[in-house]
Amino acid sequence: MVTYTDILEAQKRISSLVERTPILTSSTIDKMTDSAVFFKCENLQRVGAFKFRGALNAVYQLSNEQRAAGVVAHSSGNHAQALALAASLLDVKSTIIMPKNSPAVKVNATRGYGAEIIFCENTVNSRVETAERIVKERGSVLIHPYDNDHIIAGAGTAALELLQEVQDLDVIIAPVGGGGLLSGSSIAAKGFNPDIRVLAGEPSGADDAFRSLRDGTIYPSVDPQTIADGLRTNLSERTFSIIRDNVERIILVTDVEIVRAMRLHWERMKLVVEPSGAVPLAALLKERDSLAGAKIGVIISGGNVDLDPFFSQYKGLHVKCYL
Amino acid sequence: MVTYTDILEAQKRISSLVERTPILTSSTIDKMTDSAVFFKCENLQRVGAFKFRGALNAVYQLSNEQRAAGVVAHSSGNHAQALALAASLLDVKSTIIMPKNSPAVKVNATRGYGAEIIFCENTVNSRVETAERIVKERGSVLIHPYDNDHIIAGAGTAALELLQEVQDLDVIIAPVGGGGLLSGSSIAAKGFNPDIRVLAGEPSGADDAFRSLRDGTIYPSVDPQTIADGLRTNLSERTFSIIRDNVERIILVTDVEIVRAMRLHWERMKLVVEPSGAVPLAALLKERDSLAGAKIGVIISGGNVDLDPFFSQYKGLHVKCYL
Repeated sequence: MVTYTDILEAQKRISSLVERTPILTSSTIDKMTDSAVFFKCENLQRVGAFKFRGALNAVYQLSNEQRAAGVVAHSSGNHAQALALAASLLDVKSTIIMPKNSPAVKVNATRGYGAEIIFCENTVNSRVETAERIVKERGSVLIHPYDNDHIIAGAGTAALELLQEVQDLDVIIAPVGGGGLLSGSSIAAKGFNPDIRVLAGEPSGADDAFRSLRDGTIYPSVDPQTIADGLRTNLSERTFSIIRDNVERIILVTDVEIVRAMRLHWERMKLVVEPSGAVPLAALLKERDSLAGAKIGVIISGGNVDLDPFFSQYKGLHVKCYL
Repeated sequence: MVTYTDILEAQKRISSLVERTPILTSSTIDKMTDSAVFFKCENLQRVGAFKFRGALNAVYQLSNEQRAAGVVAHSSGNHAQALALAASLLDVKSTIIMPKNSPAVKVNATRGYGAEIIFCENTVNSRVETAERIVKERGSVLIHPYDNDHIIAGAGTAALELLQEVQDLDVIIAPVGGGGLLSGSSIAAKGFNPDIRVLAGEPSGADDAFRSLRDGTIYPSVDPQTIADGLRTNLSERTFSIIRDNVERIILVTDVEIVRAMRLHWERMKLVVEPSGAVPLAALLKERDSLAGAKIGVIISGGNVDLDPFFSQYKGLHVKCYL
């Protein structure tokens, strides 16, 4: 069970290698919500997402033997890149299992951070089996993207920094998918001050966490339909029990509301935020009447989104990427 | 003639209403350039551009009589919105002259900041004549976007903050169009430490400042061809003489190089930067060999760019803007 102390210790452990991301405000959004909103910009974190915090915290706590055997994860998203970079910075070998139809840009980015990529079929079974085979063959340690205490404690350091820098927050809002970020944020908030209210945003097309909390049982995420691709996973026993204890309410938002919030981040705050990262602002806007007058901390979880739709307007210029 | 003291005083005058914008770094860009680069993010300034600093400094220094008569500018760009907001915050009436074919989004944004919009024909003559007529009829004060000491001193406060926060910068790079930002930045840099080298980036399709400095005479900007729409103007006598005295060199960059730099800002730094704002990074990348090992401050001038090409991918969702 992750404690507030674990998050304080994680903060000390990882602070020299994580970015202390800026906390930004927007007078437009304050006016729209009639509240004071402080955005913790984890889209500006290394690898473009909060995931780097947990991955680094996990790799730091390997034994020497485990370090020598390396780490493994199955992910085609932010966790893969986060673990690859964290491992590489600490001279640990990383192996990432990816479906063979993964976009080349993600494969190359993860490889660029130093990981070995092993391809599998595009099914959950194949991913799990391939990962288990690597663990067996190499003795590598499987690092789950959220069902892992070190990952949760590391994720909680983003909210902790926000709480330490902005006095007297009334509310913290984070997105929920598998629940790692929300778990860590809620432990940080309640540990810092038990009166802080913790809210979550979840896509209505992937509302398994909402239903799980309502009914007191974990529902799997079956065929989720949302553009927030980072939030399509379901809770684990570990994240479910933390969230049940700490989180007041999950606010459901539609994809239309997510895109509106995303556009506000881009247009008014000049921040590139991925759909999952805009879910907390969408939730805040939906609940603005009940939250009016509050001092609110919002975690922007990440900013990794395909920019081709924007930059293709310049394709007559024959721009090649540097990287 | 603007002095370093003017910039220090401008900083005191405007500090409570301007955003002290964050200074961000990117390990990717440091690696690419083999240098340490500090980005002063004026795209995160109010109205999305450094222009707010100068406009606010100018409005603050009006006499009571002038305040009562209001301010006027002809601009369809960032200066218009900056002046409208600055005036509105200080309870001064603003009138902005815009060509009648200006995009509705710019007209509405400027009106949203409290300005009265007066339309003119789409010619320089019509803009100037209309502005002169308003000045004559109302006694309003015309605030030029860069050929104005208060505007230049205000613009210089961005570089000043950067110099105060980051110790021992070797080089400062700013974009050049009319030369207001470059003038202010160069006076701030040389006043802070005469040994700091000041460089500028300019689009090769609008290279009038480069040619003006080379030949010692101001060339007009004739039919400039560049996507960096904020940099299509030419120097004034005022900015020419400041730049001639303080700036080591103007580095020309192509539109392809500007888009590459812009994409780096978006993709690796998660910052929405307009083409003009990416010109200094483009210049730095072009000169990376000669700048290797240096500690470099870069001014990102603004982030106002049409985001429809990105968000139109979601149009099936029928997203309406909040604002």
